[in-house]
Amino acid sequence: MNPLDYLKENEQKALDQLKDFLRIPSVSAQSKHKKDMETCAKWVVDTMNEIGIKTETRDTGGHPLVYGHYHQSDDLPTVLIYGHYDVQPVDPLDLWESSPFEPIEKDGYLLARGASDDKGQLFTHIKGVEACLKTEGKLPVNVKFLIEGEEEAGDTHIDEFIENNKELLAADIVLISDGSQYDMDMPAINIGLRGISLMEIKVTGPDKDLHSGSFGGSIANPIHVLSKMIGQLHDEDGHIQIDGFYDKVYQAPDKEREQYARLPFNESGYIASTGAPKLWGEKGFTPQEQTWIRPTVEINGITGGYQGEGSKTIIPSWASAKITMRLVPDMDPDEICDLAEAYLKKICPDTVTLEVNKYSGAYPVQVPIDSPWLKAASNAIQTGFGKEPVFCKEGGSIPVVATFKLALGLDTLLVGFGQNTDQIHSPNERFLIKDFHRGCRTSVALFDELSKVK
Amino acid sequence: MNPLDYLKENEQKALDQLKDFLRIPSVSAQSKHKKDMETCAKWVVDTMNEIGIKTETRDTGGHPLVYGHYHQSDDLPTVLIYGHYDVQPVDPLDLWESSPFEPIEKDGYLLARGASDDKGQLFTHIKGVEACLKTEGKLPVNVKFLIEGEEEAGDTHIDEFIENNKELLAADIVLISDGSQYDMDMPAINIGLRGISLMEIKVTGPDKDLHSGSFGGSIANPIHVLSKMIGQLHDEDGHIQIDGFYDKVYQAPDKEREQYARLPFNESGYIASTGAPKLWGEKGFTPQEQTWIRPTVEINGITGGYQGEGSKTIIPSWASAKITMRLVPDMDPDEICDLAEAYLKKICPDTVTLEVNKYSGAYPVQVPIDSPWLKAASNAIQTGFGKEPVFCKEGGSIPVVATFKLALGLDTLLVGFGQNTDQIHSPNERFLIKDFHRGCRTSVALFDELSKVK
Repeated sequence: MNPLDYLKENEQKALDQLKDFLRIPSVSAQSKHKKDMETCAKWVVDTMNEIGIKTETRDTGGHPLVYGHYHQSDDLPTVLIYGHYDVQPVDPLDLWESSPFEPIEKDGYLLARGASDDKGQLFTHIKGVEACLKTEGKLPVNVKFLIEGEEEAGDTHIDEFIENNKELLAADIVLISDGSQYDMDMPAINIGLRGISLMEIKVTGPDKDLHSGSFGGSIANPIHVLSKMIGQLHDEDGHIQIDGFYDKVYQAPDKEREQYARLPFNESGYIASTGAPKLWGEKGFTPQEQTWIRPTVEINGITGGYQGEGSKTIIPSWASAKITMRLVPDMDPDEICDLAEAYLKKICPDTVTLEVNKYSGAYPVQVPIDSPWLKAASNAIQTGFGKEPVFCKEGGSIPVVATFKLALGLDTLLVGFGQNTDQIHSPNERFLIKDFHRGCRTSVALFDELSKVK
Repeated sequence: MNPLDYLKENEQKALDQLKDFLRIPSVSAQSKHKKDMETCAKWVVDTMNEIGIKTETRDTGGHPLVYGHYHQSDDLPTVLIYGHYDVQPVDPLDLWESSPFEPIEKDGYLLARGASDDKGQLFTHIKGVEACLKTEGKLPVNVKFLIEGEEEAGDTHIDEFIENNKELLAADIVLISDGSQYDMDMPAINIGLRGISLMEIKVTGPDKDLHSGSFGGSIANPIHVLSKMIGQLHDEDGHIQIDGFYDKVYQAPDKEREQYARLPFNESGYIASTGAPKLWGEKGFTPQEQTWIRPTVEINGITGGYQGEGSKTIIPSWASAKITMRLVPDMDPDEICDLAEAYLKKICPDTVTLEVNKYSGAYPVQVPIDSPWLKAASNAIQTGFGKEPVFCKEGGSIPVVATFKLALGLDTLLVGFGQNTDQIHSPNERFLIKDFHRGCRTSVALFDELSKVK
């Protein structure tokens, strides 16, 4: 029997085992689930050891980290598989159709907290290894599993662990299944994530709030000053005006932009999903390009003066703004913060003083579109899903992916088996049972395809 | 004996009587002082009746209003004297050198809550009437006293009372002593107050906060939009850009501006008092002109997006601002709100929706610089203080002055006997005893001078 047949034959068994995994309420953000986190980590360790992957927990100071490996041969490439066994909280509980930790099957879906994010997707690779070992007694690649329990928690130790365990984690490629396909029956490989820079600025005028009757007209209002500065971040075409901001921006080759242009995009559906009156963005780019391959400057919060009911006739002493910038290759988060600071200082009038606080951000990442790893993953998806995947990017950041690149020098294959409609982080999270099985098959095919790259 | 000699002879008695007035803790804003408010109103009524002014309290639904009148002759002008017997709260009590309701004399000052604002200043006119009646048995004018107990409270019924009692309050001129001289030994007449318009605006983009990674770059950020709009309120020279905003703005004649130019103005002291790095304002006008004879648009508060600690990577659903505009003659508060609304609608892009809420404001007021009432008041001050007063304006609003103008058609003489350093509304409020006596003399002289106007 070959691994794919094995998977076919054991579909129900695999699904039942996933249900056991989902029954453990491993909510990392809530301290009342601390014991469940340990139970869940142990369940993963036991399950993997049973298959033949040498697995143990590692103490990081937070929830236990699970590390496992199966070394086949020094001549084979090593795949580092990252996933997480923790899940989001379940509130509001009354909006769930069924108990979040008692998985049920409905309309082809498996409903449970963690079904898609990320227990169900992570489990496909454990099943993939099992299928190979049970049928062929060996793997076509070496594998390492790094499975954290803090991905949904505020505080995470994963970056620190990677930094401190470079040798342990040495590999050739990282594989993560913790995302979505492009659309129903449109499997995808995510080839890039934006990075992020963070800062806060504060402009101070008078050293206290002033009476706007007595002083209004003769003293600059910090809210006006800050607003005018924010108004100068973009020009009329949505281009960012910070000097040097675009200097290192990756120019996507035509081949890549053509890929994106071919993807179906429902503009009115997209607008409706945001509730905004219409689209906005940098001229010369499509909405997907604007969010995937172009950087942004975004004020996430602004504060100044009187916030309560009614009115208070003041010139406020200060006004402040929280700023994040989304970065594309090859922008450097610290450098971008410095450029933004220099620009803000340049445009800030001397009627106020400007205070800038910069915070550490995350690098953007991408896998080159002609990478042989991408080709291999593409072939594997073809086997698992019966369809060639599309290539897309994501506007958000996954910091651990940048860490894999920076600390270990590794590209990451982001091969999501879920759907955009899986309701992750919301009530009634679900995972298409068909996607689970296709994921398992893709995993087996991935090991085979990736073995040919080195 | 003439009235001025009578005042001289009875200085100590007048001061002692003022101390009795100050001992009553008539804090209108605090309900625990409700009984004291009644006691204080009764004290004023009794004191005035004793002199010969027919006085009683009027029920307004709030703290009692005191109304008194002395009718001399139909051929004489009638002076409506406005003042207030209520005082500010005394907190923080531990910063007081002495008990706020046990007046003491120190370094030529009388220290007590209400000494300057407004019991001490109001009392000068009661003593002025007394001096005339005791010595000459008559007044050179008719007087009406309107003394409220809610000037320092949030809720006031005075405007309603004036509107409903136009006949009762019919007069030729209003007189208010509830302010400051221009500087030590520089008595002043305040010939104008700015009015005010109030509004709130809110721009809404997406119908919920969006993930700034996934959507950033393709959907307009309401904070950016609002900031850009605020940035368009003024041009580089500080001129307001709202269409039609200056159409009805009073052009101060050279004679008036020359008056202001002659006033001593300590620029560095002014800047230091605000704590701002430097001055700002509309080009072509001095700081005094900017606050006295030019209108403003001021954002008193701005809110949008995440306000807490750290960062939250969102495109916020909305951003809002509280706006007040200070008006000079002959601007109309409602009309100005409409102009501002029209301008904001004009410059608001269609990537957001704009919501505007307008509130009722106050009209600006001024006494024409060549008014015979001003000349009379000027002569009276010359008598009372031995110095010619300067003319100035005030950037803030005193709504009741606009009500006198609108409801009764009356100009108001704002003849403040206090000092800018009287620490009204603060601990250790005080009133120069010398100013109190000069005020009483000015009152007597005022009745005489005003009698000649009609």
